Amino acid sequence: MRSHRKELWFETAERVAFVNITPDVDAALAASGIREGLCLVNAMHISASVFINDDERGLHRDFTTWLEQLVPYDRSRWQHNRTGEDNADSHLKRQIMGREVVIAVTCGRLDFGPWEQVFYGEFDGRRRKRVLVKIIGE
Amino acid sequence: MRSHRKELWFETAERVAFVNITPDVDAALAASGIREGLCLVNAMHISASVFINDDERGLHRDFTTWLEQLVPYDRSRWQHNRTGEDNADSHLKRQIMGREVVIAVTCGRLDFGPWEQVFYGEFDGRRRKRVLVKIIGE
Amino acid sequence: MRSHRKELWFETAERVAFVNITPDVDAALAASGIREGLCLVNAMHISASVFINDDERGLHRDFTTWLEQLVPYDRSRWQHNRTGEDNADSHLKRQIMGREVVIAVTCGRLDFGPWEQVFYGEFDGRRRKRVLVKIIGE
Repeated sequence: MRSHRKELWFETAERVAFVNITPDVDAALAASGIREGLCLVNAMHISASVFINDDERGLHRDFTTWLEQLVPYDRSRWQHNRTGEDNADSHLKRQIMGREVVIAVTCGRLDFGPWEQVFYGEFDGRRRKRVLVKIIGE
Repeated sequence: MRSHRKELWFETAERVAFVNITPDVDAALAASGIREGLCLVNAMHISASVFINDDERGLHRDFTTWLEQLVPYDRSRWQHNRTGEDNADSHLKRQIMGREVVIAVTCGRLDFGPWEQVFYGEFDGRRRKRVLVKIIGE
Repeated sequence: MRSHRKELWFETAERVAFVNITPDVDAALAASGIREGLCLVNAMHISASVFINDDERGLHRDFTTWLEQLVPYDRSRWQHNRTGEDNADSHLKRQIMGREVVIAVTCGRLDFGPWEQVFYGEFDGRRRKRVLVKIIGE
């Protein structure tokens, strides 16, 4: 069994942002030389997500608006913010969008359906944060 | 390390539907001959889910009603639908229900608790779509 | 390839509770002897979750309040409860919080970002329930 590890770094200009990281995951897989296995991609921070969906700008605006309705930023609403933080909403938004994806690796490629793209979802940006890619297989 | 890949195909009669695919995943595992490892089951389409919950019809109706309240179909509400699509709600519903499950394989069986069943969750049906089963192990 | 399996048991005093199980997952990894691979941690019950977030009491109260708003206990509201159950809300809450996490194993350790902690999320407690840890690698 072989394994490969790669960190990706991000610093988004906006508090909430979605970044297509499919090319980065593809590059990590190519560097690994692994042909058959599983590829884990996860946010290393608890106010961010990794998820798979469509690379369409309108949909990303829908995500942003909808998440804000379900979990308003509202600094005074959340008990977590009494610790001096203001990002309670980010921790909750990330639960809806998910921490990680696991992708099949087949014949040396990410084994995707026709529209699957991997995104980094940032809910408390404007600082440096990381995503982990870990691939195991042969 | 061994690996096994199987595609499952679906075309549901309703726009929203839940299909118990546990027998299909069991069959893929039996065909693989793998005794210890991990089994990934994921929707290959971004308006569908794979998840684990209870095989109870009332609960599935609760899922349908509740998801519609959280994410109404409402064609004019979502920016994604300005592309000519009408399925923005499906992309959001799938984020709540999840893209994938990873199941432990122990002694050649899906290592499940007493009520765990695997479902395909369809949120934009009436056309052919796929689920991927990828098993790695020994 | 090596594999290791460990069950963790819980019986929470409250109906809804969050338990930090990071030390238990660490111990399972140490017992496995695995240095590079993947670690799956999943609830074996369909009214409970395993997720990764912050170990901060105020945030956990925010989770509890917010989940209750999104999915009220309300015994008469859900069709699943007509079966004689009263835990339909627990099945839905677990979909938001997730069934499982997959954690990279690197150099014999859980490969975590600075604040990542693993939690058992209970939504229908006061009885014995299980979490499965399955680690594969070398």
